[in-house]
Amino acid sequence: MERKQEVADWFRSLQKSIIKQLEDADGRGSFVETVWNRVEGGGGFSNVLENGAVIEKGGVNFSAVHGPMPEKIIKALDVATGQFFASGVSIVIHPRNPFVPIIHMNVRYFEMDQGTWWFGGGIDLTPHYIDVDQARYFHQQLKQVCDTHHATYYDEFKKWADDYFYLKHRAETRGVGGIFFDRLADQEDFTFEQRYRFVQAVGEQFAPVYTHLMKINQDKAFAQEDKDWQMIRRSRYVEFNLLWDKGTKFGLDTGGRTESILMSMPPQANWHYQYEPSKGTQAHETQQLLQKDIDWVNKNAKMPAE
Amino acid sequence: MERKQEVADWFRSLQKSIIKQLEDADGRGSFVETVWNRVEGGGGFSNVLENGAVIEKGGVNFSAVHGPMPEKIIKALDVATGQFFASGVSIVIHPRNPFVPIIHMNVRYFEMDQGTWWFGGGIDLTPHYIDVDQARYFHQQLKQVCDTHHATYYDEFKKWADDYFYLKHRAETRGVGGIFFDRLADQEDFTFEQRYRFVQAVGEQFAPVYTHLMKINQDKAFAQEDKDWQMIRRSRYVEFNLLWDKGTKFGLDTGGRTESILMSMPPQANWHYQYEPSKGTQAHETQQLLQKDIDWVNKNAKMPAE
Repeated sequence: MERKQEVADWFRSLQKSIIKQLEDADGRGSFVETVWNRVEGGGGFSNVLENGAVIEKGGVNFSAVHGPMPEKIIKALDVATGQFFASGVSIVIHPRNPFVPIIHMNVRYFEMDQGTWWFGGGIDLTPHYIDVDQARYFHQQLKQVCDTHHATYYDEFKKWADDYFYLKHRAETRGVGGIFFDRLADQEDFTFEQRYRFVQAVGEQFAPVYTHLMKINQDKAFAQEDKDWQMIRRSRYVEFNLLWDKGTKFGLDTGGRTESILMSMPPQANWHYQYEPSKGTQAHETQQLLQKDIDWVNKNAKMPAE
Repeated sequence: MERKQEVADWFRSLQKSIIKQLEDADGRGSFVETVWNRVEGGGGFSNVLENGAVIEKGGVNFSAVHGPMPEKIIKALDVATGQFFASGVSIVIHPRNPFVPIIHMNVRYFEMDQGTWWFGGGIDLTPHYIDVDQARYFHQQLKQVCDTHHATYYDEFKKWADDYFYLKHRAETRGVGGIFFDRLADQEDFTFEQRYRFVQAVGEQFAPVYTHLMKINQDKAFAQEDKDWQMIRRSRYVEFNLLWDKGTKFGLDTGGRTESILMSMPPQANWHYQYEPSKGTQAHETQQLLQKDIDWVNKNAKMPAE
């Protein structure tokens, strides 16, 4: 079997496996699948769940597209003309309970007929309220996967995520970050197999980590002010995705399927002019932690006495 | 007095006049003014009203900035380096009642020390439900102002608005359009005075037209499904402003004041996956009318028999 077909088949099986694990964890909601075709070649299976018990709105999308390189892709990626193949899985989950974090994951493979290929992807966590212990847990899990595949991966990709998931117009990060990587090809001592196994490990880690975060937070009591804060944080998520996220802009610009790309939008988001959380609140504390370069793996939650 | 100071003073007086007229029409809400300064020179007065009787959230902003041309502006506008001056008034109003339309207006002046100058601006209307009679009234009012100043203005600027206020990822217009114009300078038979008088007329027409639309719609009864539809339409407004609006992107990219620029965001917006209004509803009819090149001035509402 061709390598690209093998990778695409694996992505599709990953999508199915994640859907199953998320549905089991949610206990009520079901993903609804939409099949779409791309005129120039390929298509995808978009899966969206709305109004689950834990997940208010979430998408787990798979696509595998091919054909002649669109002009905009040639420019954006600075590659030659020719035939291309691209496949991946993209996930964004907006939970109902404000104490359950928003999560995003993407793994993707790109190949050109001249033989150029690379993997890309990332996972990042956007808690409405940052819990330092949970942020540490999340980063520890990512570090473990990274460390298994290369000693430099975690530090490099953690920094990349800090830089990428950043709202420069607000000088704040989207959340507690995670890992981000792109154009992982066969350079120096990296082979296709090594890159592929790493991306597979990242993809497989998503569901256990997120369903754990769902489980430990989903039954926490919350008040209207927590929902209000959640809606504000979601508006920042909207701002990031529509203003800065390269994948979103690029997808919409090159004729991607709009409803599949914008599954990342929250079910509801609110904007208040000059909103600032009051000092001493958990919202305010979260706001203070929306910064780059926090060493989450080694960060301890403040002691009550501090 | 310098020409640029005169224009800026006039914009500031326009802002005050519009605020007064909107507050009178709202009857309950008051605009709250924030003064801000730009490090490199100039600043602004941002005025936002939240939780009025008719206006749920609205901004009427004035700014006048100057200094050395930022690198990004030089590239974006394709102009030479040097000192620049820019001033303008920007308005976005999100009403509470879904039968009152969203409106946007902007008038602006730009000048460089080498003597280059131009005016730009526009008004466009975004009804949650399109009422053909009201769209016709709105365009008739704009046409009247345009016709007073130049025979080609309305046709040219109406088309420009159709092209500008367009969500290409959804193949739909933001609303019923209006007029849009940019770089109106002293060319052929146009003088500074003629351009300036036109822009003044556009600015002065905003409040009477919009307060009329507030008045005739603000007491209409609405149900939850109308609010739901309003939230969907607002999400499209968010998408336009963050994905395609050059002013928003450019302002955030060149260090503009984020909260002033994003006053255009609605108080609340909702996204549902693959939402389609049912046939036969007013929402569906509106969706069908979100197209370019509709001759609103001559369009008649369908007769009940059609």
